[in-house]
Amino acid sequence: MENQRIVLASRPEGWVTPQNFRLEKAPLPRPADGEVLVKNLWLSLDPYMRGRISAAKSYVKGVDIGEVMVGQTVGEVMESKHPNLKKGDHVLTQLGWQLYGATKEATRIDGSRAPLSYYLGMLGMPGMTAYFGLKELGQPKPGETVLVSAASGAVGSVVGQLAKLWGCRAIGIAGGREKCDYVTRELGFDACLDYKAGPLREQLEATDVYFDNVGGEILDLALARMKLFGRIVVCGMISDYNATEPYRVKNLRAVLVNRLKMQGMIVFDWKDRYGEALKALGGYYAGGKLKTRESVVEGLENAPQGLVSLLKGGNFGKQLVKLA
Amino acid sequence: MENQRIVLASRPEGWVTPQNFRLEKAPLPRPADGEVLVKNLWLSLDPYMRGRISAAKSYVKGVDIGEVMVGQTVGEVMESKHPNLKKGDHVLTQLGWQLYGATKEATRIDGSRAPLSYYLGMLGMPGMTAYFGLKELGQPKPGETVLVSAASGAVGSVVGQLAKLWGCRAIGIAGGREKCDYVTRELGFDACLDYKAGPLREQLEATDVYFDNVGGEILDLALARMKLFGRIVVCGMISDYNATEPYRVKNLRAVLVNRLKMQGMIVFDWKDRYGEALKALGGYYAGGKLKTRESVVEGLENAPQGLVSLLKGGNFGKQLVKLA
Repeated sequence: MENQRIVLASRPEGWVTPQNFRLEKAPLPRPADGEVLVKNLWLSLDPYMRGRISAAKSYVKGVDIGEVMVGQTVGEVMESKHPNLKKGDHVLTQLGWQLYGATKEATRIDGSRAPLSYYLGMLGMPGMTAYFGLKELGQPKPGETVLVSAASGAVGSVVGQLAKLWGCRAIGIAGGREKCDYVTRELGFDACLDYKAGPLREQLEATDVYFDNVGGEILDLALARMKLFGRIVVCGMISDYNATEPYRVKNLRAVLVNRLKMQGMIVFDWKDRYGEALKALGGYYAGGKLKTRESVVEGLENAPQGLVSLLKGGNFGKQLVKLA
Repeated sequence: MENQRIVLASRPEGWVTPQNFRLEKAPLPRPADGEVLVKNLWLSLDPYMRGRISAAKSYVKGVDIGEVMVGQTVGEVMESKHPNLKKGDHVLTQLGWQLYGATKEATRIDGSRAPLSYYLGMLGMPGMTAYFGLKELGQPKPGETVLVSAASGAVGSVVGQLAKLWGCRAIGIAGGREKCDYVTRELGFDACLDYKAGPLREQLEATDVYFDNVGGEILDLALARMKLFGRIVVCGMISDYNATEPYRVKNLRAVLVNRLKMQGMIVFDWKDRYGEALKALGGYYAGGKLKTRESVVEGLENAPQGLVSLLKGGNFGKQLVKLA
């Protein structure tokens, strides 16, 4: 048995291409004391990955050329020298784009409560991002209107469903009729605006909370439609990630005029409270109140293409790579 | 005796000019039951006035063509039909750009505690804007660095002095050597950056709290220098007030990367707590810990020129018109 892994071959300028990555073979890693050897089953693909392979400063260290690409995985313990984990346990890891890895940092997850892959989506980082971002930064009150971009995606889909569960009106923004239908009919949003169908400007209604996963022009338009004392959760700027020059926002005066609060959201800042979020989200899921959808790419070798697709909005729901 | 007043003659496009205003004569107003007749002594000129004469939406209703220009004044009661005010009392009013006015809304002020004009500056709206904006939105902790633009102005000068009183490092931004010397030597800021002397980019240090009175390019530069979890108090966008097209901000990604909180500040939102601010600011002033400087224009007829000068940064400290 040998390991396969994908490393960063070159930094993208503008759009990411599969040629920015390289598949390598390597010996199977051996766990040191305190570590487990994990066989990865699922790899999560997320927009933040664009930031990690960029030359620009981001909120954590980037991936160096030749290094294994970062990412969260769900895997199975093959061999354990870890005090609290045993062979056969399912775990959440940060092992990245590879088939096997040895690590101390693995969190046991319970596949009987939900499909394993859900721990990378609505019960994982994306779900927690939605939970803390909406609850703590958005602070929605019942009856308020919550707008969320990338509404059919891993984070946005949870944001809108939580908004409904918490008594708000939920409006999504998504690209295309099919995604919008899913957002309203299956996820239960009150409305979904298709940014590909026509000018968003005329469709946007007055908003109390805007949960922003995209930045750029959509953020600019939303700024102009925020109500007095509105809150903007700045959670992603995917529209800028692939641009060589950032979009320049012109409606920032709305922050002053309407006394808006705009705040950046990174889920790691809330790690002391992950347990609270998992309990809440798990409870909603168990009660049939939280739905999700997954876009699955088969095989490690197709992970680069999966990321490219995600960054272009080609995914429909949580983007995953099935490794085994 | 007759009244004189200045009305809005036309809306400015771009820079305000004195021709946007017209001086009128009118009969002396007579106070109705519950009102006082006030002779205005001092008129306050403030950047927010640009917004009130613009066609664009702002946070309160604008001034119509032909209406008396808005503004706060300090005056003396000439005749009272008000239950709690008597002839000779000094009052704060919203009577605007005129020599006399009748109003129910007049607040008695105490000229023995501080010069009357200070109630339009550091003990008035500008001082309270600084107090609540810094304390409640900026939330500075001792040892943190507070940056403030328009540092020699009515709001900025109080922000920096409060920052020092509250144990912070205070850095100002002002235009010209003379203003910068005043900010450091007289007001006691730790440093002052002269934006006219060279590129600000290279002078800015890492900042925890940015109290923004100007918006535009300086805000953009400050965004790039904010520390993790920094706060930006959006209090004014004077750089945009006279522009026909708003400045387009490119560094908004810093909000995400550094989890910044950016919030709009209008002093009216804090009116329930004006007493608290007046007590605090009055106490600092009485203790010799709060200094101010005034730019005085003589005569109502020169108020338009005074506003034009203020909007171009020609004032040095709080801009006032002496009416009598």
